[in-house]
Amino acid sequence: MKKLTTNEITEALKNLSGWALKDDMIEKTFTFGDFKEAFATMTHIAFECEKQNHHPNWENVYNSLTIKLSTHDADGVTQKDVDLAKSIDEIVG
Amino acid sequence: MKKLTTNEITEALKNLSGWALKDDMIEKTFTFGDFKEAFATMTHIAFECEKQNHHPNWENVYNSLTIKLSTHDADGVTQKDVDLAKSIDEIVG
Amino acid sequence: MKKLTTNEITEALKNLSGWALKDDMIEKTFTFGDFKEAFATMTHIAFECEKQNHHPNWENVYNSLTIKLSTHDADGVTQKDVDLAKSIDEIVG
Amino acid sequence: MKKLTTNEITEALKNLSGWALKDDMIEKTFTFGDFKEAFATMTHIAFECEKQNHHPNWENVYNSLTIKLSTHDADGVTQKDVDLAKSIDEIVG
Repeated sequence: MKKLTTNEITEALKNLSGWALKDDMIEKTFTFGDFKEAFATMTHIAFECEKQNHHPNWENVYNSLTIKLSTHDADGVTQKDVDLAKSIDEIVG
Repeated sequence: MKKLTTNEITEALKNLSGWALKDDMIEKTFTFGDFKEAFATMTHIAFECEKQNHHPNWENVYNSLTIKLSTHDADGVTQKDVDLAKSIDEIVG
Repeated sequence: MKKLTTNEITEALKNLSGWALKDDMIEKTFTFGDFKEAFATMTHIAFECEKQNHHPNWENVYNSLTIKLSTHDADGVTQKDVDLAKSIDEIVG
Repeated sequence: MKKLTTNEITEALKNLSGWALKDDMIEKTFTFGDFKEAFATMTHIAFECEKQNHHPNWENVYNSLTIKLSTHDADGVTQKDVDLAKSIDEIVG
């Protein structure tokens, strides 16, 4: 899968909410009510990642979750990352 | 913890939605969009059960989840079951 | 997928451990150290079910987990159930 | 809870395996067979964190999990972190 250009990523992010390009990854931080809600949502996202066979770099501390997406093989952001970001937003709702 | 009488249970269920008394348990069936959503919600409920140190008899098939609550030590339904039912309804939302 | 005959199921179960044919399903009960261990293992199994696109009828109470497998479309046990049973045994270890 | 001195942390880490002091946190990286196994183990750890009411800064990418422990209120590593590290090692086994 081909790495997207910065322009292409900027365009793609217009259709998402709260995602930003940073260090060759697209990144977003979510805040939940508590750890229980954060981890249950992570579980939901984890199933979707397995389904899409694409996995995030994600970091959790209590009710905060930061997700960073890039495609290792392409050494940058691809359409797969944009698709997963969209799925994650749908899950978090 | 004291077992509630049938009258007490009936009164308590008036403050909940969709729970019914059956075979000395209070029971409710939830339907989700798919298995992923069902299991993620189960994860959220599982944390709450651990917190309340009270665990359900629950049965899942794909997007369907049936939860049955009773208190083993009391050989029937107690306030702990009513409280957990309320927490579950808040989680499922 | 074709429903297996009782003889075929009996043969298949010889290669598994602890699974029994009951009510047109193959069934096994697992016991864990506590609820936390039971639910974490359920999470692992849940991912495998999604991967195989085949889901169990499973019932949990605290540290006990009973899994019943059948194939709805075939109205009985198929090779998909035998395969999932084998995967579950590998996960539980 | 009182922040441990570097000497006290060094002593405590002798009873653990693979944990190192870094940036005022104790840190360890685990590698699992795949994402499914990593996330199922995270679920088990998550329950333990809730039980101890102490939560890690943890980061996952596919089969890799890095856990960093410190106590926010103490602005450093406390006995709570050492205890949680020990519990995590017991869970991962």
